[in-house]
Amino acid sequence: MKIIIIGGVAGGMSAATRLRRLMEDAEIIVFDKGPYVSFANCGLPFHVSGEIAEREALLVQTPERLKARFNLDVRPNSEVLAINPEKKTVTVRHDGKDYTESYDKLILSPGAKPFIPPTTGLEEAKNVYSLRNIPDLDQILAHISGQNLGKATVIGAGFIGLEMAESLAQKGYQVTIVEMAPQILPPLDQEMARFVENELVAKGITVITGQSAQAFSQEGKVISLTDGRTLESDLTIMSVGVSPASDIAKEAGVALGLKGGILVDDHYQTNLPDVYAVGDAIVVKQEITGKDALISLANPANRQGRQVADVIAGIERPNKGSIGTAIVRVFGLGAASTGLSERVARQEFDDVEVLHISGKDHASYFPGATDINLKLVFGKNSGRIYGAQAVGKKGVDKRIDILATAIKGGLTVFDLPELEFTYAPPFGSAKDPVNMAGYAAINLMEGTSQSIQHYQIEEALAAGKVLLDVRTTSEFSRGHFGNASNIPLDDLRSRIGELDAAKEYIVSCQSGLRSYIAERILKQNGFNVENLDGAYALYSTVYPERIEK
Amino acid sequence: MKIIIIGGVAGGMSAATRLRRLMEDAEIIVFDKGPYVSFANCGLPFHVSGEIAEREALLVQTPERLKARFNLDVRPNSEVLAINPEKKTVTVRHDGKDYTESYDKLILSPGAKPFIPPTTGLEEAKNVYSLRNIPDLDQILAHISGQNLGKATVIGAGFIGLEMAESLAQKGYQVTIVEMAPQILPPLDQEMARFVENELVAKGITVITGQSAQAFSQEGKVISLTDGRTLESDLTIMSVGVSPASDIAKEAGVALGLKGGILVDDHYQTNLPDVYAVGDAIVVKQEITGKDALISLANPANRQGRQVADVIAGIERPNKGSIGTAIVRVFGLGAASTGLSERVARQEFDDVEVLHISGKDHASYFPGATDINLKLVFGKNSGRIYGAQAVGKKGVDKRIDILATAIKGGLTVFDLPELEFTYAPPFGSAKDPVNMAGYAAINLMEGTSQSIQHYQIEEALAAGKVLLDVRTTSEFSRGHFGNASNIPLDDLRSRIGELDAAKEYIVSCQSGLRSYIAERILKQNGFNVENLDGAYALYSTVYPERIEK
Repeated sequence: MKIIIIGGVAGGMSAATRLRRLMEDAEIIVFDKGPYVSFANCGLPFHVSGEIAEREALLVQTPERLKARFNLDVRPNSEVLAINPEKKTVTVRHDGKDYTESYDKLILSPGAKPFIPPTTGLEEAKNVYSLRNIPDLDQILAHISGQNLGKATVIGAGFIGLEMAESLAQKGYQVTIVEMAPQILPPLDQEMARFVENELVAKGITVITGQSAQAFSQEGKVISLTDGRTLESDLTIMSVGVSPASDIAKEAGVALGLKGGILVDDHYQTNLPDVYAVGDAIVVKQEITGKDALISLANPANRQGRQVADVIAGIERPNKGSIGTAIVRVFGLGAASTGLSERVARQEFDDVEVLHISGKDHASYFPGATDINLKLVFGKNSGRIYGAQAVGKKGVDKRIDILATAIKGGLTVFDLPELEFTYAPPFGSAKDPVNMAGYAAINLMEGTSQSIQHYQIEEALAAGKVLLDVRTTSEFSRGHFGNASNIPLDDLRSRIGELDAAKEYIVSCQSGLRSYIAERILKQNGFNVENLDGAYALYSTVYPERIEK
Repeated sequence: MKIIIIGGVAGGMSAATRLRRLMEDAEIIVFDKGPYVSFANCGLPFHVSGEIAEREALLVQTPERLKARFNLDVRPNSEVLAINPEKKTVTVRHDGKDYTESYDKLILSPGAKPFIPPTTGLEEAKNVYSLRNIPDLDQILAHISGQNLGKATVIGAGFIGLEMAESLAQKGYQVTIVEMAPQILPPLDQEMARFVENELVAKGITVITGQSAQAFSQEGKVISLTDGRTLESDLTIMSVGVSPASDIAKEAGVALGLKGGILVDDHYQTNLPDVYAVGDAIVVKQEITGKDALISLANPANRQGRQVADVIAGIERPNKGSIGTAIVRVFGLGAASTGLSERVARQEFDDVEVLHISGKDHASYFPGATDINLKLVFGKNSGRIYGAQAVGKKGVDKRIDILATAIKGGLTVFDLPELEFTYAPPFGSAKDPVNMAGYAAINLMEGTSQSIQHYQIEEALAAGKVLLDVRTTSEFSRGHFGNASNIPLDDLRSRIGELDAAKEYIVSCQSGLRSYIAERILKQNGFNVENLDGAYALYSTVYPERIEK
C-alpha cells in the first residue's frame, strides 16, 4: 500500500510513524511545504526569549532520522499544489519543479494558517510577522538581531500572543498587546482573564483591549487602532488566530464545513474515497455540546494522527471528539481552561451555574503555598461539568487536567468531593481545591447556599440589597466595596441584632469561605441572604475602581 | 439536638464544622484526649527537619477560634473513657476528674494508634518514639535538642517512616531504615520502590529490608534484628503502621470488623442507634475490589466527616468507598500510588496486566524536563484500571491524581489516550505519559505488542530465548544485560539477516520506546518476539548485579 501524507508536523507525523509500526511494508511518503518536519511548534515563542536556548532543540526529528528509524520517505520543501482524487495522485512542487505522485490512501494534515485580519498598509510593512513555523521564527530572530530593541506590538492576546509578549519583554522590548475582544485570553471568561491581565501590567506590558489594528503606515512603524489611536512599533507580531489550511483540499472537491474546516466522518474519512484528514484543519465534534468545532491544539492533533493510522490499518478506532484543554504561562502565572467557558456554556445550555473558589496548590501550612483561583462551570440541574478555568502560580495544570479527565469521564459535581488525590504537604491538601469546588457546587445545587455573581452586584445594591463584608475590621479598612457594612464573621452571632430582617443581604469576605459560613448563620436565623461568589478577591480584581479605602 | 464527637482532628472536626453550618442551633461538643485539636498531622515530620519552621503552623485551629467561628464546644485533654449506648451518655476524664455528658447523636472519630510490634526491652528504652500527634513531636524534638546527634533508626518504611528518615538525615543524623517486608514502601510494587530506595541510599541512608526489630537493649541504644545483627541507635522512630483506635467503641458494644476496624453502614451508622463513626478507625469498602479495607488517609477522613454531618442533618449522602491514593516525598523524588498495586491486584483479579513507561514531566525540549516512571495495573480483558504508581522528581502527583480520577470515573485504558491535558512546554507534553500509558495498554490488549516482565527474563533466557538490545553501541557499552546481543534500532532493518527466525527474541532498549518499534519490525518480519516492559532503565534498577560493562 502506498500512503501519502500532506503535512509533517503533529497529526501527519503521528500518522506516519504509527502507520509504519502497523504496516512495515507500506510505502509512506510525507510532504511538507516547509523546510522542517516534526518541529516543536509550541516551543517557538520560548526560543525568541532564549528560554529554549538552542534552535536545534526545536527540531525534534529530521528526514534522515525518520528514514533510519521508520523507513519514511519524508520530503520537506515539497508543496502539494493539487490533489486529483480520480487519478489518486497529488501534484508536488519541489525546487521549482512539479511532479506527480500516486497514492492508495491520502492523509491531509495541512494544519492551520495565521488569520490575517483586514488592514491597510500591511503589504508595505517590514516589521510584521506571524509565528507558526521555523522560518517565521528565523525571520523574527533576524529582525531582532539586526535592530536596536525598542517597541514591540503583539496583535491578538490568545495563548501564542501572550507567550510572544512575554518573550519579547524578556528580550528587552517595551511591549504592547492589542486585542479586539473586550478581554485578553478569549478562551477564559473575562474575570479570570483579569488575573492574567494584571500580571502582564505588573510586568510592564501595556494591554489594550476592544481595539484592532486598522492600518499600518511608515512601513509598519505606525499602527492605527480602531479608535484612532496610533502606536509606534519596531516589531509587530500578528497573532489574531488561525484558520484551516484547506485550500488545496477544497479545490480537489473535499467538502468543507465550519469556517472552512475539512469535514470528516468519525473515522477521519473525507467525502472523497481514500482521502482522510486530521489535525487543526478538520472540523471536530465538541464533545460537551455535540456541535461542530475547530480546535487547534497539539494533543488532539497527535491523537487523530495516530487514530487515522489505525483506521487505515484496519483497526476500529473512532474519533470521539474533543473538549479542548489549554494552558499558557504568563510570567509567574499559569492560566488554563478545559471545556466550555461560562460565556459559551450560556449559549448552549439553560441551567448554567458557576462558582469561583480560591485554594492553595499545597497545604497552606507548608512553605511556598500559592493561590489557585478556580472557576467551575456546571449544570445546576444535572450537575454536569461544562468547563473549568484556573489561574495561579503553581498547580493550575494539575487541577485543570483532573477536571478535563472528569469531563471526559462524564463525572458530575457530585463526584468531585469523592476524588482521592495524592496528599502530602509538599504536593497537595487533604481537601484539594477540586474537592472544594465540588462541595461548593453541591451546596448551590441543594440550596444550602445561594450565590450572586460579581456582575450582578451593582444592580442588586441599587435594588436595595445590603452588602455585608464579614472580614476583620483591619482587612476591611485596607480596602472594601463601596457601600458595604462590616461585621467580622466571628462577631456575627453576637451582633446579629444589628441587622434588619426586612432587608436582603449579600455577604462577602476575602475568598468566599467566611462569607459562606456567614450565609449559613444568617439563613438559619431567617435572613434572606446571598453569598458573593469569588468574594472580595475576585471583585476587587475585576472592579478595582469601585474599591474604597 | 446535642451531638458529641469523639476526636478533634480530620474526620471529627470536618463533621463538627459542617454540622454547625447545617444546624445552627445544635449543641456540638468535641472531645479530644490530646491537648490539641485540628492540628496538621501530616505536617509533623516536616517540623522535625525544620522545613516547616514554626510549630504554630501545625496548629490549624484552637478551641477558642472554633468557639468564635463555629460556636463549637471543643474540649481538649478530655479522654472519653466509656460510652453508655443505653443511656446515651459518655464518661469523660479531664484533669483527673470524670463526668458524664449526654448525647442525641454520637460520632466516633478516634483515628488510629501506632501499631507496636512484639519486641523485648521496649519498656526500658528511653529513645524510642512514635509520631502521631503534637506531644509525640514535642518529645522527639526535646530528645534531639538534649543530645549530640548520632545514629537514628526508623523502624518501618512506609510513608511516615520515610519522611522521618529524611527529616532526621536533614537534621544531621546518620539514619538507618529497617523494614520487615522485602521492600520499602509496601503500597508500591517492589520494582517501583527500588527507585525510591536508590534515592535514599544515594542520600546516605542505610536501608535494611526483610528484617524487623526483635529486641531493644541498653535502654534502647542497641536494636537486635531478626537475623541477629545489632544496630546502635541514639534515636529510634517506630513507624510500622497503625491500627484502629476502637477499644472504647468495642467496650460499648460497637461491632468491629477487619483488624478491629469499626463497622459502619454506607451512612456511617454503627450497629448502635445514633452512634456513627468516620475516619481511620472505620472499615471502608475498597471501591476497586468491593472488599473491606482499612485506609488511613486524610482525604477520605475529611470527606467522611463532612458526609456524616450531612447524614445527621438529614441530607442523603452515602459513603461510596475509597480507592486509596497516597504520595511521599523522599529527598528529590516523589513516589505516589492510587488503587491496587500489582501484588494486590493479582490476588483479586485473573486478568491483571501491567506496563511501565518512562516519560517526561513536561516537553523534553523545554529546559528542566525530568523523568517520570509510571506503572499502570489494568485488566487485560476489560481494560479496567486497577491501579497506578509513579516515581519521579516532578509531576508524579499530577499523573496519579489524573489516574485516580480515571479510576473513580470508571474509565478504561481505552479512554486514556482520549484525555486532553493542558499542554504548553513548561507544563506538559502533547502526548502526556498518561496518554502514552493508554496507548501502550491498548497495544497489549489488541496484540500489537507482547511484553515480558523483568522478573520473567532469567527463566526466559534459560529456556533459550535471545535478548536483543536495540540501543546504540555506545549506550550498550556503558552497561548492558548479561548475554544480550546488540543491534541498534536504526540498523535493524538492514541487519535483520543476522537474526535466527527459529529463535524467540526479547527486545529491549533504554525506556521501552525503541524496543517497541523493534518488536513491530521483527513481528512483521515473522519473528516471535516480546518487548521487555520497562526495558533497561527498570531492569538495571532492580538487578544492578546482573549488569555487565
